[in-house]
This record gives sequence, structure tokens and C-alpha cells, in this order.
Amino acid sequence: MSDGIVFIDGEYMHPRDATMSIFDTGFVWGDCVYDVTSTWNGWFFMLDEHLERFQRSCEGFRLENPYSFEEMRRICAECVDRSGLSNSYVKMQITRGVPPHGVRDPRGLTPSVVVYAVPYVWIWGEDKCRNGVSLHVSSVERVSSRAIDQRFKNYNRADLVQARLEAYDNGCDDAILTGADGFLTEGPGYNFFIVRDGTVASPDYNVLEGITRRAVREICEREGIPFELREIRPEELSEASEVFTSTTAGGVMPVTGINGTPVGNGHAGIVTSRIQSTYWSEREAGWHGVRAGDILAS
Amino acid sequence: MSDGIVFIDGEYMHPRDATMSIFDTGFVWGDCVYDVTSTWNGWFFMLDEHLERFQRSCEGFRLENPYSFEEMRRICAECVDRSGLSNSYVKMQITRGVPPHGVRDPRGLTPSVVVYAVPYVWIWGEDKCRNGVSLHVSSVERVSSRAIDQRFKNYNRADLVQARLEAYDNGCDDAILTGADGFLTEGPGYNFFIVRDGTVASPDYNVLEGITRRAVREICEREGIPFELREIRPEELSEASEVFTSTTAGGVMPVTGINGTPVGNGHAGIVTSRIQSTYWSEREAGWHGVRAGDILAS
Repeated sequence: MSDGIVFIDGEYMHPRDATMSIFDTGFVWGDCVYDVTSTWNGWFFMLDEHLERFQRSCEGFRLENPYSFEEMRRICAECVDRSGLSNSYVKMQITRGVPPHGVRDPRGLTPSVVVYAVPYVWIWGEDKCRNGVSLHVSSVERVSSRAIDQRFKNYNRADLVQARLEAYDNGCDDAILTGADGFLTEGPGYNFFIVRDGTVASPDYNVLEGITRRAVREICEREGIPFELREIRPEELSEASEVFTSTTAGGVMPVTGINGTPVGNGHAGIVTSRIQSTYWSEREAGWHGVRAGDILAS
Repeated sequence: MSDGIVFIDGEYMHPRDATMSIFDTGFVWGDCVYDVTSTWNGWFFMLDEHLERFQRSCEGFRLENPYSFEEMRRICAECVDRSGLSNSYVKMQITRGVPPHGVRDPRGLTPSVVVYAVPYVWIWGEDKCRNGVSLHVSSVERVSSRAIDQRFKNYNRADLVQARLEAYDNGCDDAILTGADGFLTEGPGYNFFIVRDGTVASPDYNVLEGITRRAVREICEREGIPFELREIRPEELSEASEVFTSTTAGGVMPVTGINGTPVGNGHAGIVTSRIQSTYWSEREAGWHGVRAGDILAS
């Protein structure tokens, strides 16, 4: 399988050659936003929605993308096309750039844009993503949106790393973090959902506005499953009949344990499985999809 | 003047050649800690104290430095020696490393260590650092230590960048940020102090435990100036007779305006000037100092 293709500021290269200056303020000051979409069976998923969110992240961080929406679209397509991958993980990022020595002012630097397509990633491996993981409710608090607005997808994620390490310490696969206000937020790279009395609910504050979350909502609406975005207390995780998560890199993923205790009967629940199977069958069929070749031919 | 020297995982190079993989989790997950010291007139300042804090930052982030304390000391000295700089800015950092494709577990990766010596940096230019800056009390909240412990010096600093941009919007040079609890914390790369009724006070929670702050405390104790670490309310900035900041890259620096209003008479205050001049005369004379050549010869 191809290792993928990386685009950096106009050039295409192998991932092993993809480097950046250690002085880029995207790294040194966490002054960087990104987004991730995927192709499955050759189809990009909600590409424009991801590009629009990336644009909002850029604006939120006051980063100016030198490439237009249409150019970004073509660069994504070009990476996928050159990689030859039909199932791929496609990331785009922009960093503030490298300042002259001693310059502290972020204004007026030349931003650097990276896009790449690499083999599709299952965040917990395919088996766990499809069949269930155990999550740990972390003692590490999620960075507050009053400090760094979590609607803008960014690399300031040291809280998420420490939460994940704590989850491993506790025999779990990954974490869910609580916000400063005591309500649940999200995990490292995914939204989460609970099912209570047949209603699917997910937090709406201090979280990334997930595109896969949007897909979950759309499936719920189509299938007549009540869906709501609202504050969720940590205790509700144990009161829920089902828990699941969503992300580009794994889709709709059952949570079968919380803090070492099984959720429901310890297997993927009925509502979760229904949403998950719809998600994947739709992905196979090119739902909300566009092909790289069609973008490049247009 | 020399551009400086960068050490990366055993090799020394020119800063322009200092690159890292775009896949390093130190960048992608903000999974990185660092520290900064300096040489002035050839003397390192409190080198061991900076190395000790770096060690605590590594432990706090569960990053394992492959180099011993003594090895780090020699690498710092080697960078300064090779750079030929007598006034230098010396940074050390460790990133988690590059995971194999699709691997999410931060454990077991090979960390990357970077050290460099470049020409000394005055964060606001020498004139403003010596004579005064205007600061803006930001509406952006400092990332909470309950999310990312700010005693561990790290690159998750998007809050600080946005606070600085907001300060520019308001005609100020830089920012001070309030914490989630409503008390003042620190600015982008510096501690701050107020002088009230002859007593110097600085926040003690949700801040970096500055080594230059420690030097300020030592000077205060020696000169009989009362010093305290305590909670500081935003309103105290306007009630203070003097305000100043401290950092490696500028030393002890007067604040002559807050939110567009002069502090005191709009010039560096008496207490600030006394601490500042002691700091610099001591630095010239090699206070708490060691020379790179002496480290390398030992």
C-alpha cells in the first residue's frame, strides 16, 4: 500500500521527507489550525463541509490561508489522486510561519500550508472502532473554550494526551474530558453521545463541532431517532443505555465500558449499531461524496 | 554576528537547517516541553535551575529525556561555545517523537531533543524592555492548570497568541491574562509583579514558576523589599504604584501603561528601577553564573 503523499506550500513529496522548521510559530506557539477528512471507497466525505470548517478555524485563529477554497479542494484531490489510496485519511493544516530572529509579532508572517493523504486511520484499530472501546472519565480538565475556542480545530492538545495516558493507567482505551463547568465535553479527537430513553444526546459546548457528529444527526433525523445537543453531566454516562463516539478516523464507534464498568450489556447497543451500519453503508455508496478524479477533471 | 547553533538528537547545525517531521507528536498533539535560559557577557544564568525546571516539565508531561542532567548541561555549553555568542538565548525542548503510521499511543515513542543558542532576544526590543511597555488585560482566559499544568513550560500557547493580537488591536504592546478563577496569571512568556505600599507581589497559581521571578525575589530579599506570592485581582493593576514583568528574554521590565492608562507617572517606578539595575549589574558580573568553556573543560 502507498505511504501517501504530502503537499507543503506547493510541493508534493513522500511523508518521510515532510519536514518543517523547528522555529515555525505553528509549533512554538501552538499557532496552527487543522482539519481532517477521509476518502472511503474512493469517495471524499463531506469535503466542502470540512473545508468550510477549516476556513472557520483559520478565521478564529486569525490565520490567513493563501489558498482559496477551490484551490484547497484541488490540493486535497491531488494528494488523494497521487497517493493512489481509495481509503485515505486526509489532513490539512496551516501554521503561522517562521518569524525573523527575535520577532514576536505574529502579524505579517508567511503562513505554511500542509495537506496530506495517507492510508485511512482507525483511531483505536479497526476492531475496537467497530466493536467497542472502554473510556475513562478523566481527572484532566478539557482546555476551556474561553482560553482556546475548541470550535477551531487546533494542536494545543496536551490535556488530551495526559488524559489518554491516565486512561491507559486505568486499563481503559481512551478518555472523555470534563470541562471547567463540570459538564462533559469530548475525547482526544472525537465527539461522544449517550442514548437515554431512545434519545441520542451529545454535548454542544467546549467541543469541536464534528462533521461526523453532523452525519450522526442526519442519520438520526432520517431514521426518526430523537437527537439533541445539550449539557451532559458525568453521572449520565452510567445512567445511559448506550454510549458511542464519532470521528473521521473510525466513523461511529460503540463505547462498551466506562471507567471499567460495562455500558448496558457490554456490547454495542441497538441504536448505536443502527447508526453505525447506516453510516458505513452510506459511506460505501458515496454519501455526501465526491471523487478526487472528478474534482481534478472539473 | 553569528546566527547561532542548533543541536538536534546528537547533531549540530545552522538554524536554517533545523527541521523536524511534520508528524512529530510534539507538534501535532502539543506534546512537548521546553525551557529557556541565556548567557550574558559570557555567563549562563542559573543554568542548573533552568535544567532542573526542564526536568520537572519533562516529568510533568511524562516525557523521558534520553540525556542526563550533566549531558544536557554540556550540550547547552557546546551550543553556546560553537555559536561564539556572549549574549545568547538558549532554548532546550523535547518532543514526544514520530509515531508509526496510525499509532495513537504516546508510550514507547523515541523522543527528540533540541537545544540551541541564538543571539540574545529582547521580547519587546531592548528599548521597550528597559524603559517600559503598555499591557492589555486580555479577554482571552489563560489555559487552566487543571487542563495543562502551567508549571510545566509548554508550547500549547494559542491563548497567549490571541491575547497578544487583541493587545495590538487595543494599541498595547502585549497582554496579561486572567485565569478561570478570575485572578491574574501571567503574560505570553513572562511573569508580572505589582508594587503596592512598597511590597512587591506576583501571582502564584496558574503561572510558570519563573527563574527570573526567583531572581527578583532574591534581589528583594537582599534589599529589604517585602515580596509575596499571592492571588492578584485585575483591579489591583490600577491600584498599584508600579507594575513590572520578568523573563529570561529581557530581564526585569517596567510596565508603564495598562489598558491605555499610565501606571504611576508613566515611567519606570523607583522599586522597579532598583530591581532592574541590580539584576543587570549582577548579570554583567556573572551572578549565579557559569561559563560554557568551564563546563566543557570540566
